[in-house]
Amino acid sequence: MKIILGIDPGTTILGFALLDATSSQGALLDIGTLKLSKIKEHADKLKTIFESTLQIIELHHPQVLAIEAPFYGKNPQSMLKLGRAQGVVIAAAMYKGLEVYEYSPRKIKQSITGNGNASKEQVSAMLINMNLIEENKHPFDATDALAVAICHHLQNKISVVGQKFSGWEAFVTKNRDRVVGV
Amino acid sequence: MKIILGIDPGTTILGFALLDATSSQGALLDIGTLKLSKIKEHADKLKTIFESTLQIIELHHPQVLAIEAPFYGKNPQSMLKLGRAQGVVIAAAMYKGLEVYEYSPRKIKQSITGNGNASKEQVSAMLINMNLIEENKHPFDATDALAVAICHHLQNKISVVGQKFSGWEAFVTKNRDRVVGV
Repeated sequence: MKIILGIDPGTTILGFALLDATSSQGALLDIGTLKLSKIKEHADKLKTIFESTLQIIELHHPQVLAIEAPFYGKNPQSMLKLGRAQGVVIAAAMYKGLEVYEYSPRKIKQSITGNGNASKEQVSAMLINMNLIEENKHPFDATDALAVAICHHLQNKISVVGQKFSGWEAFVTKNRDRVVGV
Repeated sequence: MKIILGIDPGTTILGFALLDATSSQGALLDIGTLKLSKIKEHADKLKTIFESTLQIIELHHPQVLAIEAPFYGKNPQSMLKLGRAQGVVIAAAMYKGLEVYEYSPRKIKQSITGNGNASKEQVSAMLINMNLIEENKHPFDATDALAVAICHHLQNKISVVGQKFSGWEAFVTKNRDRVVGV
């Protein structure tokens, strides 16, 4: 079974969705959110995001992580925090041997609704039309995560995050020159 | 032996240093840089940073990661990339059970030179005075990594990144309510 994990990594709520991509339409396996707002320390949030991503991967065994890569401006401090959240999700996925792909918000909206400027409501409505989710059942953080998984399923690859992580031994053998000691 | 891993995570060069913190002065165990400028894809850089951090931890068995947390403004896109680099370093450290601490650049400079606005040259000169490194031998990326490790050694803890990662089973047992399924 070909399974895509879509994640919308925020520092308040993280949305995730698992798509069975065996058929051309795809079928929803799991969807949900991880609530981080009650965790005060930013660092504890990162820890929870990392561990939860590992947990989701161990439960469903996806082969691919698709993640939204924001390119719009925000304040630098928010972007650093968002980047850290994305970084731990990507690291957890790489550690588990998943291939990682990223898509811009515009590309995701375009691929699902045909309009790169579509609203979250329009994206969600299209996912309902596709019989993937029921109406009014999931928050936008979850439907956004499903949207990026669907986007990966529908599109050709946009940006490949390296080859599959081929294990520690292979890396050490290949990259001795990269780490420069004393 | 109490060992502190200091990392200065950039997306062009990553500096690292390992400090034996058993004595009050501390002793340098290893110092170096990881060159990322030749890796074109940002995502491949993240993969290399993640794997190299694991490699360094497996080689030296530090108990603590100390990392520089920039709070100054940069453009949002650079901050997102820097955040991702930091995120994968933090994730690798958490996965290996290290405690993670972060310090602002000002705090690091203050703790080493007594001046929060000290230059990189002044920080480096102080590390030479402390007999930790030789003159003109290491790039600033490496001395900055040593500086954050020394800062952690000299200071009380500023910002604790969660408790020690106590293993997967413990997390699953404790956090079942955090992951909300269909």
